[in-house]
Amino acid sequence: MTPEQAYTELVRLSRDETVLSSCLDLVEWDEEVCMPRGGAEHRAEQTALLAGLVHDRAVDPRYEELLAVVEGSPLVADAESPAAVNIRELRRGFDRERRLPRRLVEESARVATLASQQWLASREQADFKPFARWLTRSFELAREEADAVGYAEVPYDALLDDYEPGLTTRRVSALFTQLQAALVSLVDSLRGMPAPAPAHVLAREFPIDRQRLFFEGVATALGFDFERGRLDVGRHPFCTSIGPGDVRIAIRYHPRNFAQGLFALLHEVGHALYDQGLDADHYGTPFGKALSLGLHESQSRLWENLVGRSHGFWAHFYPQLRGTFHEALHDVSLDTFRRVINHAAPGVIRVQADEVTYDLHIIIRFELERALLSGDLRGADVPGAWTEAYQRYLGVAPKNDREGCLQDGHWAEGLIGYFPTYTLGNVYAAQLFAAAERTLGPLDDAFAAGDFRTLRDWLGEHVHRHGSRFSGAGTIERATGSAPDPSAIVDSLTRRYALQANAG
Amino acid sequence: MTPEQAYTELVRLSRDETVLSSCLDLVEWDEEVCMPRGGAEHRAEQTALLAGLVHDRAVDPRYEELLAVVEGSPLVADAESPAAVNIRELRRGFDRERRLPRRLVEESARVATLASQQWLASREQADFKPFARWLTRSFELAREEADAVGYAEVPYDALLDDYEPGLTTRRVSALFTQLQAALVSLVDSLRGMPAPAPAHVLAREFPIDRQRLFFEGVATALGFDFERGRLDVGRHPFCTSIGPGDVRIAIRYHPRNFAQGLFALLHEVGHALYDQGLDADHYGTPFGKALSLGLHESQSRLWENLVGRSHGFWAHFYPQLRGTFHEALHDVSLDTFRRVINHAAPGVIRVQADEVTYDLHIIIRFELERALLSGDLRGADVPGAWTEAYQRYLGVAPKNDREGCLQDGHWAEGLIGYFPTYTLGNVYAAQLFAAAERTLGPLDDAFAAGDFRTLRDWLGEHVHRHGSRFSGAGTIERATGSAPDPSAIVDSLTRRYALQANAG
Repeated sequence: MTPEQAYTELVRLSRDETVLSSCLDLVEWDEEVCMPRGGAEHRAEQTALLAGLVHDRAVDPRYEELLAVVEGSPLVADAESPAAVNIRELRRGFDRERRLPRRLVEESARVATLASQQWLASREQADFKPFARWLTRSFELAREEADAVGYAEVPYDALLDDYEPGLTTRRVSALFTQLQAALVSLVDSLRGMPAPAPAHVLAREFPIDRQRLFFEGVATALGFDFERGRLDVGRHPFCTSIGPGDVRIAIRYHPRNFAQGLFALLHEVGHALYDQGLDADHYGTPFGKALSLGLHESQSRLWENLVGRSHGFWAHFYPQLRGTFHEALHDVSLDTFRRVINHAAPGVIRVQADEVTYDLHIIIRFELERALLSGDLRGADVPGAWTEAYQRYLGVAPKNDREGCLQDGHWAEGLIGYFPTYTLGNVYAAQLFAAAERTLGPLDDAFAAGDFRTLRDWLGEHVHRHGSRFSGAGTIERATGSAPDPSAIVDSLTRRYALQANAG
Repeated sequence: MTPEQAYTELVRLSRDETVLSSCLDLVEWDEEVCMPRGGAEHRAEQTALLAGLVHDRAVDPRYEELLAVVEGSPLVADAESPAAVNIRELRRGFDRERRLPRRLVEESARVATLASQQWLASREQADFKPFARWLTRSFELAREEADAVGYAEVPYDALLDDYEPGLTTRRVSALFTQLQAALVSLVDSLRGMPAPAPAHVLAREFPIDRQRLFFEGVATALGFDFERGRLDVGRHPFCTSIGPGDVRIAIRYHPRNFAQGLFALLHEVGHALYDQGLDADHYGTPFGKALSLGLHESQSRLWENLVGRSHGFWAHFYPQLRGTFHEALHDVSLDTFRRVINHAAPGVIRVQADEVTYDLHIIIRFELERALLSGDLRGADVPGAWTEAYQRYLGVAPKNDREGCLQDGHWAEGLIGYFPTYTLGNVYAAQLFAAAERTLGPLDDAFAAGDFRTLRDWLGEHVHRHGSRFSGAGTIERATGSAPDPSAIVDSLTRRYALQANAG
């Protein structure tokens, strides 16, 4: 068998595995967006079965045979070519997956569905107790996964590597420590500042049907293609790609918390633009797929914060917004509105956090999940540890577990080692945006003129179209000229928020 | 291996196959209800892959080995026991499935998705031509399936048997001929009668959001459990069961054709009550599954017509309806409303057809699909043959192919041999309703008092809970004391509509 033949067969195997895996993605999307409560038990069987089948394909011994034929051949001489990238990533995926026992894969899928159901119920009732054993079970399974996959220093490395290949716990910790110092001092400078007088305007009534129309218009203007995607209501905001031509966003609408829905929308549109910008010709192979969740998150955070809170963005959209929600906004000027949505103050809810405090929410989760994984923290002790961490980092305490440790569903879903990618995303986003402006000039005027394409094209060129070509850090380095580094985000936040502190 | 051990293993295999198959059901539901246009090509890959995997399991040679151990053992001595029913049906399914080449199964799934997309586009543009080759391809595949499966007399038998096990083309033809004679004469007696004066009231505006609320209330009142199901908008009305606890209805809302949405809702609720009434403990085995689509259709048609057009039903719901749609109905009395929704007259659209003419629409399709399958009719010639048949049976002609041969998506979806089950359903429904009233007394007063449970319980007892225990005809015979026979439906229609003719 020639390397070319082996490569063709590998691409076929990869495509097949991806199509099957995309069925699981759809089933999981449905679970979040559509499934009636009564369907949960059966859904756990469906996801377990599909996850098992995907795993079977991922560990197909033919991968080993075929990879051996291609590896070291001239086909992969150019490390940045699609073939070389695909072989590198198929090898990495195969080596990881074949270490996972099938039983563990099925059990993790099943527990993710059932734990999520219990999380939902517990959150509704603000009652952590019945969720505790599911949380413990999720971390047991994550630990089993880490032990099966192997790691250099700590078990957490093995999980992190699945979401952000190439990055270690040690390196993330160093980066976060540096960031945290800057953030804590910035937060301190903001503390005690009164909220801008008209902050309550966002708690006025913004009818949901009009929010929907407005959001659809914004998503379209930013470049989201509704012929190749959907916008739905989910139990929490997310974006998933079912296949090329089918990228789905889910958000929640809050009639009296307009900003929460809006920024969730912008966030998920950022993810969706990345997925819609991947090279569909390479669908089903690593080259057609995003590799780093940190990089993915950089896209969502960039559109959410660096675009969606900018002067230009609102110079363009505010007149329409005010027309759509005349009752709520008739007495609110553009400047006031921007001041309100750019107000920073410590709070207890991550998804409502401003840009300045957001990463402290993540740092708390990063700390707690490492402790849970190592066994230093027990599942049952999470509520106390959570409250203690919030007091320590943010000086606030949740009133109950609903707005405390039950606010996020990630751990129930088995997304452990995932939270740091949010902050990596913020760090990367600031670097990318600064680099884009170095090349394109200040973008505010373009936004004000309704031009979001200039930025989108730059991101497409430097991020989206590369799929798995480079690691997250590698992409940042190529696109911005620097390795991942928190100085861009600290600069950006200081420039915008220290000013607010001075003005306040 | 003991028969008991073999049976346990068979149940496990069957459950596993059913769970996988239910993933395909979900993917297909999504295709009808959610998928953006851009997702169609990828969706075809997903359905083909899943259909192939389901097929692999259905032809697992272990079925043969295990069935051989159980068949003839004391475990199956009682032919009506769950074990005996399961063994009988697993054998039937296995013998059918193992005759189907895997390639055909995958290709049929792929063509179903792509042909449906073209059908949608063709229907929108009332342009049959680009659909013709897909129609031809669908029938070629159906013919291949029939040839692979085998049949006693005509290829159509093989397809029919998949939807209505035990029934032959010959027997259906005989039953339909008998019915057709009675219907044609009843339709003749109605012909030329003017529509009731206020027929246009149904074309007044019924705002969709209020329709939705009203429909949800009706579905709940009839017994549909929203904790274990959903109601959505689909490109055509249907009901599908994703699993126990997850039964989904899709309908379309027509702001100026209230009756069409309403009766579609009642129809699909009838299907859903059957699925929600199956024995969940037997889920994943034939005993927990409906066997005959004719019987399934009897439930939908019974609730749609024999309940939903009754005096009692509207005595209960009309006051609320009039309150909800005050502008449209303020000048319409209950009697007038009932006269309008019970008006019968030949038309060109099946899903808008009244009870009297409905089965003639089916008989036309039955005739055409047999001709298409045998090769007597070519795909490209369908529009002409369609118009000719409508003129012959109903004395009407469609204005274009959109309201002609492009009105139904069944053939595109590969549902060939399926249409007769609609009329079998009408025949069975009339027999069941008459039998229920023989036992329970006239039901109109119960309906007027909002009691739909008495009837639902009777149907649960005589139909739903039996799953695949009996054939469609067998169930009817046990529940009503008679074999399938059109006299009950002819009586019911004559009693209600000949009166209308006389009154008119």
